[in-house]
Amino acid sequence: MTTKVIINDVGPRDGLQNQSITLSPANRVELIKALIVAGVGQVEVGSFVSPKAVPAMADTDIVLKNLADSPGEFSVLVPNMKGYELAVAAGASCVAMVLYGTDGMARANVNMSRADAERAMEQILQAAAIDGVRVLATIAVSWECPFDGPVAKDTVADITRRFLGLGANQVVLADSIGAANPQQVRELTTMLVNEHGAQNLACHFHDTRAMGLANVFASLESGIRSFDASIGGLGGCPFAPGASGNVATEDVVMMLEQMGYDTGIDLQGLMNASALAGRLTNNAPGGRAKRWLEGHLIKKKEQMAHVHN
Amino acid sequence: MTTKVIINDVGPRDGLQNQSITLSPANRVELIKALIVAGVGQVEVGSFVSPKAVPAMADTDIVLKNLADSPGEFSVLVPNMKGYELAVAAGASCVAMVLYGTDGMARANVNMSRADAERAMEQILQAAAIDGVRVLATIAVSWECPFDGPVAKDTVADITRRFLGLGANQVVLADSIGAANPQQVRELTTMLVNEHGAQNLACHFHDTRAMGLANVFASLESGIRSFDASIGGLGGCPFAPGASGNVATEDVVMMLEQMGYDTGIDLQGLMNASALAGRLTNNAPGGRAKRWLEGHLIKKKEQMAHVHN
Repeated sequence: MTTKVIINDVGPRDGLQNQSITLSPANRVELIKALIVAGVGQVEVGSFVSPKAVPAMADTDIVLKNLADSPGEFSVLVPNMKGYELAVAAGASCVAMVLYGTDGMARANVNMSRADAERAMEQILQAAAIDGVRVLATIAVSWECPFDGPVAKDTVADITRRFLGLGANQVVLADSIGAANPQQVRELTTMLVNEHGAQNLACHFHDTRAMGLANVFASLESGIRSFDASIGGLGGCPFAPGASGNVATEDVVMMLEQMGYDTGIDLQGLMNASALAGRLTNNAPGGRAKRWLEGHLIKKKEQMAHVHN
Repeated sequence: MTTKVIINDVGPRDGLQNQSITLSPANRVELIKALIVAGVGQVEVGSFVSPKAVPAMADTDIVLKNLADSPGEFSVLVPNMKGYELAVAAGASCVAMVLYGTDGMARANVNMSRADAERAMEQILQAAAIDGVRVLATIAVSWECPFDGPVAKDTVADITRRFLGLGANQVVLADSIGAANPQQVRELTTMLVNEHGAQNLACHFHDTRAMGLANVFASLESGIRSFDASIGGLGGCPFAPGASGNVATEDVVMMLEQMGYDTGIDLQGLMNASALAGRLTNNAPGGRAKRWLEGHLIKKKEQMAHVHN
């Protein structure tokens, strides 16, 4: 099994849309380029949603244009056909769409049933096939839903089978609220990797309950080699002070590289991107690699003198 | 394999000795009793070291006497024969001793070679056998040492074999500096459980690099059913601002209970103990279960309205 792992940094979308500060397109591009410099090969760079609903994601077309000469795969989230058309018009070659593990989550997010939301995404998938646009299909609440509770493995397996069959290039299993534990993660990912192989599957974890890296480890052992993560852990919920958001890219990369996996990413470069994210959003980065690295590099001697058992 | 998991809370020793505030024996007993009320069955309640070297652990005899009528197993750390004798005189029925995975760590901590440190502990083990005192033997830096680097699995296996053979009731594999990754943890724990069974083995993790719960999960899957943890994650290194200390008891219990394991511990009771630890040490608890529970219970509705994917 390969030791290469792909990281898709969703911070410039999933992270920035949750900040109190709205960044200019130039600053968003600056952050994305810092990720590219660090070696991140995939970035979710924005979304084509109503700028009234999500002002932080306005001008994603400008962001995309400024990345035209940069290496990497840049995806943009599209909530509906109109968003898809805007994305393609702006030159997007990869779109991200959201499916739902439950009706409750589909209704809360897009005011549709789960089945209706799937039908809407199916239309985009058909258009993308014609246009030669790649599609990443995220299944929100793949393990637990805040409205409908635990999600049956078979439901997620059905959605995965259907959308891979329809031509989605990747299905991303998302623990949207950071509620899954590594045992559940192991069970679902083992089941789906057995059915489809790992090539077209990815995982997306939040660190809400401190289990983010445990869940990465569990799914990695199932064979998953592609993970969403967010620089600096950007994406903390503004309604829950101190709550963690997406698992931090630097934490995931630190663990993977220490275990001998090859992410192609330079941890010090990520720290630069994380610091930039912190300055731009006026938010202390949530990842813990930073604190460890600082302690390790700057305070190594004192730390050593202090350890006991 | 059993779903029962034993938690040994080392906060009242490993945690409190790392605080800027020295607690009175009465306050230490108050914290320990809050842990007992929550259902924690094992607590490391103090140490018999020089009160000049570690003032926070002075009066451990008073702490022990005040716990004489409380249910549970209370261990005390003893660094040498003198400490052991003081512990037994104070009524201790269980002592914790420290062994070392490397010479560098042994020299830094007790100014001895690893072998000499083992010989000193061997004498205590012989006395404990005669006295009917239980012995928990922790191997510090079982995976990586800040001085000597990575530790060979065979070295830890040799120490484990030797001390279990000499009659130690439990060998505790400690990732003293929070440097181990779950893959390494899986390898060593699988090897040792295969040789000895899990009954007399335990693990002790720090959350320095956010891998605390991942390491608990990895060793749990190897069969380990006994873990050290520290209420509120007490034990953060004062030389590395923001650095995490021991993996927080509430985080470990939250994950284990969510995975269907039985710790016998009430999470809300632990939150009370964690809040008490925070008040007594004037230190915000480091565990993340608290933040999650608060967000979950108090802000559930807003959180729900906010989640996306």
